[in-house]
Amino acid sequence: MKKTLSNLTSALLLALLTVGHATAQTPNKPTLEDLIPGGTSYRYTESIYGLQWWGDVCIMPAADSLFTVDPKNGEKKLLVTREAVNAGLTQAGESAKLPQLYNVQTPWSGRTQLLMTLQGNYVVYDWKTNSVVSKRAFPRQAANRDYNLESGNLAYTIGNNLYVNDRQITDEPQGVVCGQSVHRNEFGINKGTFWSPKGTLLAFYRMDESMVTEYPLVDITARVGKLNNVRYPMVGMTSHKVTVGIYNPATEKTVYLNAGDPTDRYFTNIAWAPDQKSIYLIELNRDQNHAKLCQYNAETGEPMGVLFEETHPKYVEPQHPIVFLPWDSSRFIYQSQRDGFNHLYIYNTQGKLLKQLTQGAWLVQDILGFDTAKKELYIASTEVSPLQTNVYKVNVANGKRTLMGNNEGVHRAQLSGSCSYLIDSYSTPTVPRSINLLNTRNGRSVNLLTAEDPYKGFDMPTVEVGTIKAADDSTDLYYRITRPADFDPSKKYPVMVYVYGGPHAQMITAGYRYGAGGYHIYMANRGYIVFSLDNRGSSNRGLEFENCTFRHLGIKEGEDQVRGVEFLKSLPYVDAKRIGVHGWSFGGHMTTALMLRYPDLFKVGVAGGPVIDWAYYEVMYGERYMDTPQANPEGYKECNLNNLAGKLQGDLLLIHDDHDDTCVPQHTLSFIKACVDARTYPDLFIYPGHKHNVSGRDRVHLHEKITRYFDDNL
Amino acid sequence: MKKTLSNLTSALLLALLTVGHATAQTPNKPTLEDLIPGGTSYRYTESIYGLQWWGDVCIMPAADSLFTVDPKNGEKKLLVTREAVNAGLTQAGESAKLPQLYNVQTPWSGRTQLLMTLQGNYVVYDWKTNSVVSKRAFPRQAANRDYNLESGNLAYTIGNNLYVNDRQITDEPQGVVCGQSVHRNEFGINKGTFWSPKGTLLAFYRMDESMVTEYPLVDITARVGKLNNVRYPMVGMTSHKVTVGIYNPATEKTVYLNAGDPTDRYFTNIAWAPDQKSIYLIELNRDQNHAKLCQYNAETGEPMGVLFEETHPKYVEPQHPIVFLPWDSSRFIYQSQRDGFNHLYIYNTQGKLLKQLTQGAWLVQDILGFDTAKKELYIASTEVSPLQTNVYKVNVANGKRTLMGNNEGVHRAQLSGSCSYLIDSYSTPTVPRSINLLNTRNGRSVNLLTAEDPYKGFDMPTVEVGTIKAADDSTDLYYRITRPADFDPSKKYPVMVYVYGGPHAQMITAGYRYGAGGYHIYMANRGYIVFSLDNRGSSNRGLEFENCTFRHLGIKEGEDQVRGVEFLKSLPYVDAKRIGVHGWSFGGHMTTALMLRYPDLFKVGVAGGPVIDWAYYEVMYGERYMDTPQANPEGYKECNLNNLAGKLQGDLLLIHDDHDDTCVPQHTLSFIKACVDARTYPDLFIYPGHKHNVSGRDRVHLHEKITRYFDDNL
Repeated sequence: MKKTLSNLTSALLLALLTVGHATAQTPNKPTLEDLIPGGTSYRYTESIYGLQWWGDVCIMPAADSLFTVDPKNGEKKLLVTREAVNAGLTQAGESAKLPQLYNVQTPWSGRTQLLMTLQGNYVVYDWKTNSVVSKRAFPRQAANRDYNLESGNLAYTIGNNLYVNDRQITDEPQGVVCGQSVHRNEFGINKGTFWSPKGTLLAFYRMDESMVTEYPLVDITARVGKLNNVRYPMVGMTSHKVTVGIYNPATEKTVYLNAGDPTDRYFTNIAWAPDQKSIYLIELNRDQNHAKLCQYNAETGEPMGVLFEETHPKYVEPQHPIVFLPWDSSRFIYQSQRDGFNHLYIYNTQGKLLKQLTQGAWLVQDILGFDTAKKELYIASTEVSPLQTNVYKVNVANGKRTLMGNNEGVHRAQLSGSCSYLIDSYSTPTVPRSINLLNTRNGRSVNLLTAEDPYKGFDMPTVEVGTIKAADDSTDLYYRITRPADFDPSKKYPVMVYVYGGPHAQMITAGYRYGAGGYHIYMANRGYIVFSLDNRGSSNRGLEFENCTFRHLGIKEGEDQVRGVEFLKSLPYVDAKRIGVHGWSFGGHMTTALMLRYPDLFKVGVAGGPVIDWAYYEVMYGERYMDTPQANPEGYKECNLNNLAGKLQGDLLLIHDDHDDTCVPQHTLSFIKACVDARTYPDLFIYPGHKHNVSGRDRVHLHEKITRYFDDNL
Repeated sequence: MKKTLSNLTSALLLALLTVGHATAQTPNKPTLEDLIPGGTSYRYTESIYGLQWWGDVCIMPAADSLFTVDPKNGEKKLLVTREAVNAGLTQAGESAKLPQLYNVQTPWSGRTQLLMTLQGNYVVYDWKTNSVVSKRAFPRQAANRDYNLESGNLAYTIGNNLYVNDRQITDEPQGVVCGQSVHRNEFGINKGTFWSPKGTLLAFYRMDESMVTEYPLVDITARVGKLNNVRYPMVGMTSHKVTVGIYNPATEKTVYLNAGDPTDRYFTNIAWAPDQKSIYLIELNRDQNHAKLCQYNAETGEPMGVLFEETHPKYVEPQHPIVFLPWDSSRFIYQSQRDGFNHLYIYNTQGKLLKQLTQGAWLVQDILGFDTAKKELYIASTEVSPLQTNVYKVNVANGKRTLMGNNEGVHRAQLSGSCSYLIDSYSTPTVPRSINLLNTRNGRSVNLLTAEDPYKGFDMPTVEVGTIKAADDSTDLYYRITRPADFDPSKKYPVMVYVYGGPHAQMITAGYRYGAGGYHIYMANRGYIVFSLDNRGSSNRGLEFENCTFRHLGIKEGEDQVRGVEFLKSLPYVDAKRIGVHGWSFGGHMTTALMLRYPDLFKVGVAGGPVIDWAYYEVMYGERYMDTPQANPEGYKECNLNNLAGKLQGDLLLIHDDHDDTCVPQHTLSFIKACVDARTYPDLFIYPGHKHNVSGRDRVHLHEKITRYFDDNL
């Protein structure tokens, strides 16, 4: 056909219209780079960095200025500029300058002083007098720095030894570690130095792990593959020995607590008495079923007695040091799950229980602070819902609780100096982040930030939660289902079940999008139904919900996940033949276990950093839930996935990091060997240089890898 | 339709007929278990085990009897029964009995004596006198046993030290190894002890590798992952130091050769002078381009001189000790590639070249023995064809060569005592194995065995060879093509290119099925065209063919393989879009390199135990072909596949063994890291517990894994 001009014009117009039409319809979906932390275009939710209290005045930093915010009305005023601070520092003879103000602190309500770290020094700077009030240097290799606000003393570690100010406190050989966290960060332990209330005495951990087997990890980025040994005590094997020292900077003397033979014992939850004369520990036997609250003389290290004991046929898991009432140094709060939920108990220093302060079928998650004037304390709890964290004020005399802020979502709070205000930062299923200054007396609040959805403008999936019954037919379990933005109920969709399932974690919350992460969004956008279920064994549901899995990790958890799959299969839009599962760590164990125990239900699995055989896991976590292999041989046998390697039918990709020192590579590699022996065919990938997950830039690669595996095989 | 009885009968009959028909047509293909060594039903080619000479009488053992075979006529006679030998042994006071006779030896033609190992002893037993002639004990841990037939002396190692008879000869710490092979088995070295002609002096290697970097391998089958360090000198780094000792059992003294500083030197090809008074070594500099034939006084260890030297701008690779003419102890044969092919040269002990004994565009592969009476020697060579190994008798005086046996195939030969006969064992493309007693004087032969095709009755692919031009447009390269039994030239087939490509190996030979292995058979039966090409750089084609790859390993080799692909694409039955490649070791390097350099040609690759970066390879092999990274930075850069990780497009599976001490796991893992960095997506598998290949039972798993990868992705 011969084209005329008008013909051509029409064709062009049509083309343009078509293009316009196509653009309007093209889905606008965020990429992995947008959705995965570490991605080049990852979108963080808006926040206010460095927000803090200065007495009852809120301090809001910017790069170049510190502002005060009046919590009564939100009025914002310039406090000091970076330029002025830097000029003052120069004038005071400091050569370094602050590059921004987000990291300065205002910890002293009565004083016009900033605390900052400046070129190897803690510097206290007075912005009124433009002078350096004090300075405390630390060497460049210093790690685990612990600066005391009362005394200005500084504890830190270099290598395996402890230092205070400019003095080396311990001189231990390799294999003995001082001033660092012990017991592999279990029992709520996350540091190794504990200043006394006045900052004049330092309690610290000393851990002799020279008798612990070394696990060899290999760094392949060295010129010749280089050995990186880690001390890793495996269940049933010789564990490390921990002692507690107390160093007195005034006398330069250290005394070690005379706690007897430390073999097979845990020394947890260090707390100072308000008068600094004694120190309290919760001591636990290796079997973790017998805890004792012990008091020691801080000067002599001699034991002063056991205040009380707590036992449980399965396990006791102390995670919170005792906290003294600021207005009565003869009374303290002790947290226990003894009635089935973590609650607060008031004891006196004779070890007598005075009363249970909180109770109910919900749990206290944290003590946030005390209002001495009103004899109240502030807690975070799940009282409104197991998916939520809300802040309550508790009257110590009568136990009356008052909700602070709204009754939705997941809240974090920072109390002001007098407890008259708190910074209430929360998210709800529909609010990514809201930051408010809340008046604790009258409930009024000033909003500082309500963040926009960082993915506003993109086509986003819908997220819903609900409950189903556990495999015991009575316990309610929460699930979350994420469906494509263009969900069509008449279609059949494949499913990715994302699983964790272990203790101390909860996937479904009342936070933004019910906790659905970037990868859930991505996969739903890709046309998958993404489903998660917090099975029995997971957290925030109480002790019995958690410890029903005792000595048989993964079994009941898996039965509950099967209920989740049955629910999915009841949905008309789910393609029951195309259900896959993915998880990391305990979730890697669950993924592998589900693939092996329920080969008819799951077609594809991607297991990251999985536990395969609990015998390769560490003593503290492992023996709490599984006892030792010697004491529980049938449980270890039943839960050892190597024994099920021959059951593999679907496509299972195992991913492990070559520097995983939480779940050593032996797990995955032993499973590969078991599958080779059994003539089954899993897939494998290794991320060199990473630890127990893949973080940073490579996290995008990881998720692309997982996506391809699902796309190719499901 | 209502079915009547006759209707039903007809239907049944039809069904039966159909089934019958289908059965008749069902292909009868061997499985991987049938085809892969280590498989439960692997079919070995029939052979005669323990066949040997006793002077000019052939000895053929069976489990319970030793037979003599007269090489003149094949007449077989009972020599002695196991029952009689065991009765004699009992009578002589031995408590142990021989379980079968396949391992006894008849090394002494004049004597009615058997050599056997019996419960920790070398025992010489006389079957005529029913007596034990001599006994030499060795401990259970003894390795590298070297029993001398002349003297009855026995050398062996325990751990890293050397023993002779019941005496410990060396007492070295860990890191110094005595009496074992050195220089990582390069330069033809495969043992560490060398008895003098009369067996009264022992030369041995001592290797100090305490200064060599250890590569950490991890055994995940231990209770806790266990470190297995191997001393692995990488190119350009500090290498081990070798010295040669001579131990005299009579004086119990050891003298070490005074060869000077052993740093960066190779001591290769130890040979004794016939009079035992001196010893000859071919010494080589670290750069491997300058060899010296050196003589040392065996009593004092002092150097006696350098007989002659050989240099080459690329490399000299001595692989054969000198061999003295039995009838003239002033003359010896030296092998050299100096004219482009490995040939024999006669020198005198003054180091004077008397003559080149063989020459031509073919190479001598082995010296098999000497006929002193006739002043002839026997060699194996490629004279008939580069694909063949044939046996020739060579007249030393005039160089005249006489072919022994037929002019086909690949022959192995064992000469009888007087060289009047040889056991000629060969295969050809159509004969799996033929064993004959050949009269070297008149060429007559007696056939002892003509093996059947072990896969007789199965549907087997066809195998053909041919030549194409190399990428230089002039060199002929041999290829082998294996096509399905039911090949239909009108169809389009996918291709698996099986590649090795490195020096010292040849894939295509004139042996059975032209060397096509069980896996080639399997894949062809599965519907693949299986193709192999011996590119430039491979063996049996002469020095220039091999060394044209110098300092740039993998480049020219790959260009030749591309010619192979172009040839494949010219075949009407090849599906040009479905070409995959697979290889191990150097072939793993080639596979990875081809996938990265020619992503448009290769859709799928499976690379086993690949070299990725020659910087991670060992000094001896690595520096011969690549020089050091310091001397050849651009070559190392060009050949380092990590630098090409971003080019990956197709599906590439890398397989590595976690105990690979030839090509350490760092190769594959560094490539994985490079791909993660470059955001490309290879696949990975690891075989725990294996070394530089997967052998035994797991070899079937390996090939099933490879097959699935090809099936799923090509």
